[in-house]
Amino acid sequence: MPEGRPLSMTFSFDLIKEDDRTAARAGMMRTPHGDVPTPVFAPVGTLATVKAMTPADLHELGATLILANTYHLYLRPGADLVARMGGLHRFMGWDGPILTDSGGFQVFSLEGLRQITDDGVTFRSHIDGSIHTFTPELVITAQEKLGADIIMAFDECPDPTDYDYNVQAMERTHRWAERCLAAKTRDDQALFGIVQGGVFADLRAQSAEFLTSLDFAGYGIGGLSVGETKAEMHAMLEVLHPLLPRHKPRYLMGVGSPEDLFECVARGVDQFDCVLPTRIARNGAALTRRGRLNLRNARFADDPAPIEEDCPCYTCRTFSRAYLRHLIVAKEITGLRLTTLHNLHFMLETMRRIRRSILDGTFADYKAEFLASYQPVPGK
Amino acid sequence: MPEGRPLSMTFSFDLIKEDDRTAARAGMMRTPHGDVPTPVFAPVGTLATVKAMTPADLHELGATLILANTYHLYLRPGADLVARMGGLHRFMGWDGPILTDSGGFQVFSLEGLRQITDDGVTFRSHIDGSIHTFTPELVITAQEKLGADIIMAFDECPDPTDYDYNVQAMERTHRWAERCLAAKTRDDQALFGIVQGGVFADLRAQSAEFLTSLDFAGYGIGGLSVGETKAEMHAMLEVLHPLLPRHKPRYLMGVGSPEDLFECVARGVDQFDCVLPTRIARNGAALTRRGRLNLRNARFADDPAPIEEDCPCYTCRTFSRAYLRHLIVAKEITGLRLTTLHNLHFMLETMRRIRRSILDGTFADYKAEFLASYQPVPGK
Repeated sequence: MPEGRPLSMTFSFDLIKEDDRTAARAGMMRTPHGDVPTPVFAPVGTLATVKAMTPADLHELGATLILANTYHLYLRPGADLVARMGGLHRFMGWDGPILTDSGGFQVFSLEGLRQITDDGVTFRSHIDGSIHTFTPELVITAQEKLGADIIMAFDECPDPTDYDYNVQAMERTHRWAERCLAAKTRDDQALFGIVQGGVFADLRAQSAEFLTSLDFAGYGIGGLSVGETKAEMHAMLEVLHPLLPRHKPRYLMGVGSPEDLFECVARGVDQFDCVLPTRIARNGAALTRRGRLNLRNARFADDPAPIEEDCPCYTCRTFSRAYLRHLIVAKEITGLRLTTLHNLHFMLETMRRIRRSILDGTFADYKAEFLASYQPVPGK
Repeated sequence: MPEGRPLSMTFSFDLIKEDDRTAARAGMMRTPHGDVPTPVFAPVGTLATVKAMTPADLHELGATLILANTYHLYLRPGADLVARMGGLHRFMGWDGPILTDSGGFQVFSLEGLRQITDDGVTFRSHIDGSIHTFTPELVITAQEKLGADIIMAFDECPDPTDYDYNVQAMERTHRWAERCLAAKTRDDQALFGIVQGGVFADLRAQSAEFLTSLDFAGYGIGGLSVGETKAEMHAMLEVLHPLLPRHKPRYLMGVGSPEDLFECVARGVDQFDCVLPTRIARNGAALTRRGRLNLRNARFADDPAPIEEDCPCYTCRTFSRAYLRHLIVAKEITGLRLTTLHNLHFMLETMRRIRRSILDGTFADYKAEFLASYQPVPGK
């Protein structure tokens, strides 16, 4: 029973099914570059490329939404250049939906000089040390030049455990959210606001209340997965679930691991992005239904089995752990690529199964079954 | 009018056409893992992977023969391990023809400790400094464990300009060639001898005479492209052309650049391998019909054109020079891969056109046309 309403001329979100036993939701986002079944995991293409992948690989993997980073693209090659090349879709050869983040998370993570005022943030480029200032207006303009289907408001990402500072940062994020909405000129992009408030239920509630009073197409949940515990993250999602609009997508930014997908979908999240599967792949770690496999380990040196016995990805159909270990130890590019391919397949396929289980009413069972056999990295 | 004769139970070479105006030849090698139309360019997969490519890429590019290195695979992961994993084809997921070189060129290129006796060569591993000795027998055994379709005799690769030393090295190479033939036990591999003799016509003739008296399935031409001039290399090929058997393939080892393909095919060469297209790709240099394009150059920063306007490769169909430059400058793995893909397409497609032009009698015209517009790197 789709109940969606169009959020702009070109973006809509249909809520298709809500789970009975959890807060899990299945839906469909419609964007100018295609539909995105939710819940969705978006591979991260920081610099307009998902590291070691081509757009053809991503299509074959069934990726439906790709993330790119405004901070990184602003510095290199520059948003103006991307615009002159026809925008991000054409530039990177990906004709499917793209989301750009606002750069907020990146500039607040930078070491060294940084000045935060109500106007914006002044920072040093991590590439050449040059000084730049991001304001809400500049960040929206940059994202309009990049031309993604979904763009994000500029937000402040503070230490999530400092209450007093989170009050200040949240209020600034709210003022910036209004300025982002005002600065927006393109009606073929959906702008999401970002809820802040650290690990504090009252601040999260206040942030959700304020931001949902504004006309955003969806809501990012920011400032999590940055040092707080999983229990704190889950608690914040539980606070937000009843407060965020049912018929708009909720995007938990920078999350998650395989176990996060289950725990956070169960708490009402529709959308995820995370560098984890691609980053650990480049360190030789492969995701499996039992946990991570460190392919550098000597015990795989003459293991003829694939990463996962019944995995249908190209890597598992074609290569042994022994071969992958050989490539990784020898620092061969192909090793990074084959492991990345498997890990993205694992994440995307797990999310497709999650969605099917929501639709057929078995999500809670699938979650219990997955988490019973999956061994997360200790302490993560 | 094929005139081939079977050279072993499982390997044969059919000479299909000889050019009227040059020494160019078109043929067909038949191996246990498939047919190889000649002349052929073999991409180099040193460590059982063509850097940045998968076997699926190589099939799509139309590669028919891949080279791997016995020296490198002997050290890492080891020939025994590859054998336990089912041999090189299965290990690397490439079901087409493979050639392994003998490691001669590699051990004679190593810095540091090295002892050359009639028995063999003692050298230090470039990985961990450990001491190893390659003898003709060990090298054949290692290649039998790897299981390539074409294997190479162990040879000494000296400075090609020292006459007296080349006499010695050639004679040793001849004694080793006999030992390699004697050591061979598998009848599903074709063993090629390697002609040496530096830049000296009399030595090359002597080497060809001796080696063709033995029962090799084909002939490598070794010790060229290591410092001598192009004119010297061409002169050696002209000496060898009438001396090598018409009905056996001739393999110019470690050559060539695009211009080399034309000049050496015109002098009777059937088979080439070279790291050039893949290595320069990883440095950001793309091959075009006018010469090399250094994609790092700032003038490509906002160039919306592909590397080559009418090139049908995935890279050129999908991406601009501006995007490729961005990836290369940002050190993105995808940049290495896309440039490698284009360069291999360029080499393989050029060789396919060369072969067609031999078959339809227009090779000399195609050669003249190609070389008139192709600008080799000065001094190369």
